[in-house]
Parts: sequence; structure tokens; C-alpha cells
Amino acid sequence: MTPSNRIAVCPGSYDPVTWGHLDVITRAAQLFDELIVAVVNAPMRKVQTLFLAEERIEMIRQATTQLANVKVEAFDVLLVEFARTKNAMAIVKGLRAISDFEYELEMNQLNRQLSPDMESVYLMASPRYSFLSSSGVKEIASFGGDVSELVPEHVARRLTEAYERQ
Amino acid sequence: MTPSNRIAVCPGSYDPVTWGHLDVITRAAQLFDELIVAVVNAPMRKVQTLFLAEERIEMIRQATTQLANVKVEAFDVLLVEFARTKNAMAIVKGLRAISDFEYELEMNQLNRQLSPDMESVYLMASPRYSFLSSSGVKEIASFGGDVSELVPEHVARRLTEAYERQ
Amino acid sequence: MTPSNRIAVCPGSYDPVTWGHLDVITRAAQLFDELIVAVVNAPMRKVQTLFLAEERIEMIRQATTQLANVKVEAFDVLLVEFARTKNAMAIVKGLRAISDFEYELEMNQLNRQLSPDMESVYLMASPRYSFLSSSGVKEIASFGGDVSELVPEHVARRLTEAYERQ
Amino acid sequence: MTPSNRIAVCPGSYDPVTWGHLDVITRAAQLFDELIVAVVNAPMRKVQTLFLAEERIEMIRQATTQLANVKVEAFDVLLVEFARTKNAMAIVKGLRAISDFEYELEMNQLNRQLSPDMESVYLMASPRYSFLSSSGVKEIASFGGDVSELVPEHVARRLTEAYERQ
Amino acid sequence: MTPSNRIAVCPGSYDPVTWGHLDVITRAAQLFDELIVAVVNAPMRKVQTLFLAEERIEMIRQATTQLANVKVEAFDVLLVEFARTKNAMAIVKGLRAISDFEYELEMNQLNRQLSPDMESVYLMASPRYSFLSSSGVKEIASFGGDVSELVPEHVARRLTEAYERQ
Amino acid sequence: MTPSNRIAVCPGSYDPVTWGHLDVITRAAQLFDELIVAVVNAPMRKVQTLFLAEERIEMIRQATTQLANVKVEAFDVLLVEFARTKNAMAIVKGLRAISDFEYELEMNQLNRQLSPDMESVYLMASPRYSFLSSSGVKEIASFGGDVSELVPEHVARRLTEAYERQ
Repeated sequence: MTPSNRIAVCPGSYDPVTWGHLDVITRAAQLFDELIVAVVNAPMRKVQTLFLAEERIEMIRQATTQLANVKVEAFDVLLVEFARTKNAMAIVKGLRAISDFEYELEMNQLNRQLSPDMESVYLMASPRYSFLSSSGVKEIASFGGDVSELVPEHVARRLTEAYERQ
Repeated sequence: MTPSNRIAVCPGSYDPVTWGHLDVITRAAQLFDELIVAVVNAPMRKVQTLFLAEERIEMIRQATTQLANVKVEAFDVLLVEFARTKNAMAIVKGLRAISDFEYELEMNQLNRQLSPDMESVYLMASPRYSFLSSSGVKEIASFGGDVSELVPEHVARRLTEAYERQ
Repeated sequence: MTPSNRIAVCPGSYDPVTWGHLDVITRAAQLFDELIVAVVNAPMRKVQTLFLAEERIEMIRQATTQLANVKVEAFDVLLVEFARTKNAMAIVKGLRAISDFEYELEMNQLNRQLSPDMESVYLMASPRYSFLSSSGVKEIASFGGDVSELVPEHVARRLTEAYERQ
Repeated sequence: MTPSNRIAVCPGSYDPVTWGHLDVITRAAQLFDELIVAVVNAPMRKVQTLFLAEERIEMIRQATTQLANVKVEAFDVLLVEFARTKNAMAIVKGLRAISDFEYELEMNQLNRQLSPDMESVYLMASPRYSFLSSSGVKEIASFGGDVSELVPEHVARRLTEAYERQ
Repeated sequence: MTPSNRIAVCPGSYDPVTWGHLDVITRAAQLFDELIVAVVNAPMRKVQTLFLAEERIEMIRQATTQLANVKVEAFDVLLVEFARTKNAMAIVKGLRAISDFEYELEMNQLNRQLSPDMESVYLMASPRYSFLSSSGVKEIASFGGDVSELVPEHVARRLTEAYERQ
Repeated sequence: MTPSNRIAVCPGSYDPVTWGHLDVITRAAQLFDELIVAVVNAPMRKVQTLFLAEERIEMIRQATTQLANVKVEAFDVLLVEFARTKNAMAIVKGLRAISDFEYELEMNQLNRQLSPDMESVYLMASPRYSFLSSSGVKEIASFGGDVSELVPEHVARRLTEAYERQ
């Protein structure tokens, strides 16, 4: 891996993207030459998302237009497989709470078994976003609550539309 | 920060360095152009070390001769201050257990308050080193136990000498 | 808020109420002039309850007749919104284990963002109830196990009926 | 309980059995005269398994033929009830992470309330299996990933078949 | 306990008081008619403080002059004993992290054994103070770092003086 | 290891023994043919105890006279070494809280490295003793508080004497 081409992958459901995700994406983009935001797209899996993969990707793209070295893509294979295909040197994740840490530690060691050469690096969430999750945001939006400080404006709009549709 | 000069600092007491530390140092050295292993040297502080800073530095140097982009240095100022002086773009730490995580989360947010632009990145300890700490190693060595699988050979020798001296 | 009118809200699913909930309710009722036990009623949400909101409310009412300053009400809006409508000065919750704490910390900070003036206070579960949850009670009852020391008698009866119906 | 007849029960879903489970079963079999691997069989419960109880039992039997004092049985009553019927002196469980511990602590104290005389003993997962769970294995297998180092060969084959069927 | 005289005790070492402590004290003062900030004074105990009890009390007093219902006092007996003497109905503590929670849970249940009628209530630290501890502040100040955003100005001054003295 | 000679070691500082320790010892004594309560005796180590090893042993002996298969001994070597010398098949420990678990997990994996054949088994503390520690008991006794429900009567007496001596 030459220093001129350090690629990393930043995976998630992003259903939808929050200011917490964007804080991690912005900081990770400074550590690598190229950052691929990788959006889980697993339509046959049991986990149901509020937004389609294309919608989730579109919302992240709109929020990261200022970040020249950030790309957004869907993936529907094993994460380490996807990262390898992209010639990534590392997977980047944000950590918020103890339960994040435990889950990531387990995933980390499972990925290491599957792919010993793929490094994973972690960034700690900023204090003011340490409470923020997509599910919390959806909870509030579903009650008609104000999420304008938790997600970008265009995401807030989509959330309102999504819950009015229901 | 140009891609050709990505410097990171990997701080610790390293009293003494273990295979767990060396695993993190080796992996971190692949993520950055230059990695400075920063050894806490605070003689007037209350925490007493078994080895002098020079001894701890010497043991790390001997264990990292194969890693061309790794330097070892002592520091006796605030960590973020030291990292800034070295033009580092990030501080790198290994995470083993929940208590590591909690401590690092607190330090992370304190450092961020002191120095908002200094990023900290974390690597998860490999499963087989996840139980390993300098204090555990010293505990075993102090009872005359066998630490040859926990630290490099030259460190094991120094430990034996140190406890025979006492 | 005058001292003569300190209102607090104690929210939960209470599906069904246990001796653990009642311990927290009883203790919270001594700290405030009026305690409103707020029962989540969200029929269009995905979380399915064993008992209807009216049944859950009725079971709590029957168990708190001795507590003069306790009221029981359903709510189907955001909790902080409900608390504000009731002129509550605080939300009261019981804490049992680390996972409770983490979840409550996240909720706490999310609520604070939505409603900076609404305080939340926490009571630690009594040791003998620290293992007790509605889902544990339902698990046991669904196997025909004896829950008579975990919930009031009238609740145990309703549980037996509910699982015989199935 | 005479020393010549120390029976223990080792419960789980085993959907499917992993090398982590088998490590705990092997070690537990050395502590007791007889070890009954107890497979949860609750067809009317909400938790859906990938394999039928008979399949899960068959996979464990095939993996434990070398362990003379191990039996495998399904159970569909409360665990403490099942253990009592089998004249077991203890329930044995493996512990991997903090969240395992918390859950087990809660179950432990609930079981103690239901059956004060039934002891529960815990073994810590070996470091190299500490990241391993049936759900992680299924996740990987569902993406066509390689699970041959995580489960016995005959289990890996069944997993491949199961996901090809879907 | 009549509503017109709700007293609570808010104990700590306060060595020295931080904005995190003051946030909890301010919020607790709104929940009770009178709040007694109780400063541990145990000169014969092993834990050494940087500031004398009188100095710590003076720093809190200066920082709480705007809070009419807050008193500051030293105590050198068991906390529950002190709270009883003051006719307090509750002990109030702030919670920041998992380790705080665990320690407080243990203390809570020990105090309950000693004094079943004394309630303890907990407030969650505000996100921006969740990383803040007296020992972190002293660490930074001992290196000559800037603590002006972590403690009130008069406390920052005292810290500078204390470390220049050394 | 024949079933007629199952030996286990139950290590600790026991400074002094509490009802929590005695609960674990009593339950462990039912699981094995012989239980050796192993009292840490490390006079040259930094950790200072309130009672001498002989005093701690004497207090445990007096509290376990009813348990025919329990012996009490001091040890001053590595624990796994001691257990091996005693032909023990297992080390038994009680677990109370998350922090106990984390520490024991680390020790477990370190011991396993040193001595792969020595099993460690864990019992969960009973709910009413889950808050109880020797240091908590000493804290209370040092303030002249009542510890009569936390330790046996003869231990309470010794504690009173010890703190009057100071």
C-alpha cells in the first residue's frame, strides 16, 4: 500500500445518517486519502430499514459534498470482502458507548479470523453526539418531535415525509 | 498535513513493553508514515515504575529494530502538547477491555477539550493478547513465574534481573 | 415550581408491573408531592405488549391504592412532551444493571437536547429486585412457573389467564 | 448427592453448536460425572431458530462422540425444572463478554428465587473463542463466507445447505 | 417529612470542585428545598487530597453564592450518619460513566443495609461534563495545562498556585 | 482425577472474611470433595492488609468449622502453582459485579497461558451479598459503624479492636 493511496471503508446502516455519523466521516476523511462510506444493502435479511439503500446513499452524498475524498457505495457481501475488493487498508468505525465497544470488539475478532490482514480503526464519538443513534432519531420523528439538531436539514425533511406516509 | 508525512504518537508507560504493546505498535506503524512510541517519563509523579524511562525506551528500541518507521522517545509534558510538537496528526492507542475503553473515552474527551484538532485512533488488541498487561507480567515475574511467552526474550531477562535485585 | 406542587413522572411499559417497579414507585412517591406513573401506549409501534394499556394501568392502580399521591395514566406522545404537559419538574426512573444505565444515559442526553429544562432522576433498584424484569416474569409464567413472589397476586392471576388463553 | 453421581446441565440454543460451545462442554465434562447438554426446544416461542431441535441435537452428538459422559437432550420446560428432573447438582454456562455476564447474573438470581438449591457455575470462554457466537457464524455463512475454523466440519456443511435452501 | 423542608445531601471530595460538580449541585438544588454540599474530611484516612477541607469548602462556597438554598459543610463520619443528623430525606449523586454507576450501586446497597430509610437519588452528568473529574483536572494542571474551561476561575488560580508551590 | 478426590482452591485476601465470602465457600464446598480456602500471604508486596495472614486464616477457620471438607491455608507463590501443588482440579471464585468479571476474565486468560490444564470456575454472588466487600466493611468499621450483618460476630469483634488500636 503506497502512502499516496490509503483507502478506508466506513460501514453502517445509516438509516438515516445523523450528525454523529457525519462527525466520524469528516474526521476519518482526514486520516486517509480516500474514504468509502459503505451502506449495508441486504434486502433479503430480516432487519428492516425505514429508507431504501438508494435513499440512504443519496442522503449521505448530499451531506458530504464538501468532502472531496469521500465516496458513498452500497454493499451486500461480507464487510471484509467488500473492503478487500476496494483495496482498503482499514475499516473505520465510531465508538459511542460500552455496548458499541463490546459489539465492535466481537466483530473485530471475528473479522480478524476471516481476514487477518484487514485492520480496523476506531474513533470515539464527540461528547455532544455520544447519545445520538439513528433509532433514537426515528423514535423522536415518529412522535412528530423536532430532530433538526440531530440530523442535516434534508434528512429531517425526509424523516417527516416518511412518518407522514405511514 | 501532506500524505507523505503522516505522523502518529503511540503513548504508554511500557513498564515493560509486552507482546501486546508490540502487536499494536506493529499494526499502527502500517497505518502511518512515521510512528513515535512515546514513553511517559514523569519522575516527580507519584506512579512508581519498575524500570527507568531510559531502560523502558531501550527495551522497546531493541524490540522494534525491524520497524523502519518507528521511533521511541520519552515525554514529560501533556500528551497532546507532545503530539503537537512532533507535528503528529493522531494519537494511537490499543484497547483491550471495557475498563480500557472507559478510561480512554474519558481521556479522549478531555484531550479534545484541550486540543480540538488532535485526532485519537484506537486499535483493538488481538484476542491472544487481550489479557496481557505490564502489571500482570510483573506480578508473575515477581513470583518467579515464566513470562517468556508474554514479553520478548530480552525483556524477560531484565525482569528476572530486576526481581533478583530486590 | 413551588415546593407545594412538585410533580414527577415515572414512565414505563409495565407489561406487567412487578414488585421491582412498585418498589421504585413507592420510594419515588416519597420524594415528590405527586407521582404520575406514565404507561406507554403506542398501539401502532412495533413493540407488542402482552397486556393492553388499559389492563396494565388497571393492574398498577390496584397495586398502588395505598399511595395517595400516585396517579396512573397512559401516554402516546414523546415522554418529555408528556411530562411538560403535566407540569412535572422531573422524570423518575429505576436503574438495575449496567445495560439499564447505558440505555438511560443515552435517553437522558437525548431528552436533554429536546427539553433542556426537564430533569431526570434515578433510583437504584433494591438488591432483591435487581434481577427482576417484566420479560423475565413473562418467560417464567409462559412455562407455567411460579411468579407469586415476583408480582402482586392480582398480576400473577392475570398472567396465568393470559398464557392459558394462548 | 454422592460424589459418584455428580450431574450437571449445560443449556443453550446451539443454533448451531460452535467450537466455543464445544470448548465449554469439553471442560465442563471434566468437572462432573455426567454432563447433559440441554437444547432449548420451544416451537411456540417467538425466537426462531435456523435448525430444528432434532438437527441441533444431532450436530452436538456428532461433535461429542469422544466424550463418554456427555448426553444431549432437548427441553421445553423452565431450565431449573429440567435440571431438577435430571437430578442435576448444577447448571454450567460459558461466559464470553460483559453482556453475557450481565444477562447470566440476572438469570442466575431469577433462578435462585425459583429454585434456591440449584447451583449455577460459570466457565470463562477461551480467548480464541471469546468472539464466537452462533449468530456471528450464521451471519458469515449467510453471505457465503468461510466458517470452517469456527464450527466442526459437519456443522459447516449443514450451514451451507441451509443457506442454499433459502 | 413535610414538603416545606426537603433537605438533601450532596457528598464528595471536591478536590477541587469542577464545572461538572457545579452542574449537578445546581440541578439538585432545584429538586430540594435545601441542599447541603458535604465535603469529605478524613485527615487520618490514607487518601491524600491536594487541598485541605477548609480550602475545598471555601472554593465551593465561592462558586455557589448565587444558589440561595445551598450550604457547604465538612463531614468526618459515615455518610448515612451525617445525612441523618441533618434530617436529610435523600443523598444526591452525579453519575458519569459505567464505573461511577457500579461503584454507586455497591455503595447504595451498602448504605441501604446500614440505613434502610435513607433514599439516594442520582442525576446523569451533562454530556459536556461527562469526561470531567477532579483527578483529570489536577493531572492537566500539574503539567501546567490550561484548565480554565474545566473549573471556575478562582479554582484555576488555586490549582496554579498549588502546583507552583510543589 | 478420580471422582472420589475432587479438590478445588478458593483464593482471596479475606481481609477480613465476610458473609459474602462464606456464602461462596459454602456453595463451593458442595461442588467438590475438598475445598482449600487459600489466603494470600505476600508480606513483601505493596498491598497492605489490616490483619496478618494468620489472623485472617484463624477468622475463616472459626467461621467454617461446620464445613467438614473445607481447609484453610496461606500461599505465597503464583496461584496456579499453589493449586497444582495441592492437586486441585479447579480454582473457584465468586463474581459480584462487572468489574469483578473483567478482572477475573483477564486473570483467567493469564492463568490459562501459564497453566493450560488448570480450570477456573465461577459462582455468582447471592443478591443480598452482591454489594459486600472487605474494603467496604473496613470503611464502615473505621468510622465506628455497625458491621454485624456483614461479617460473623467474631470478625466484627476483631474489626472493632483493630480500629480502636489505631
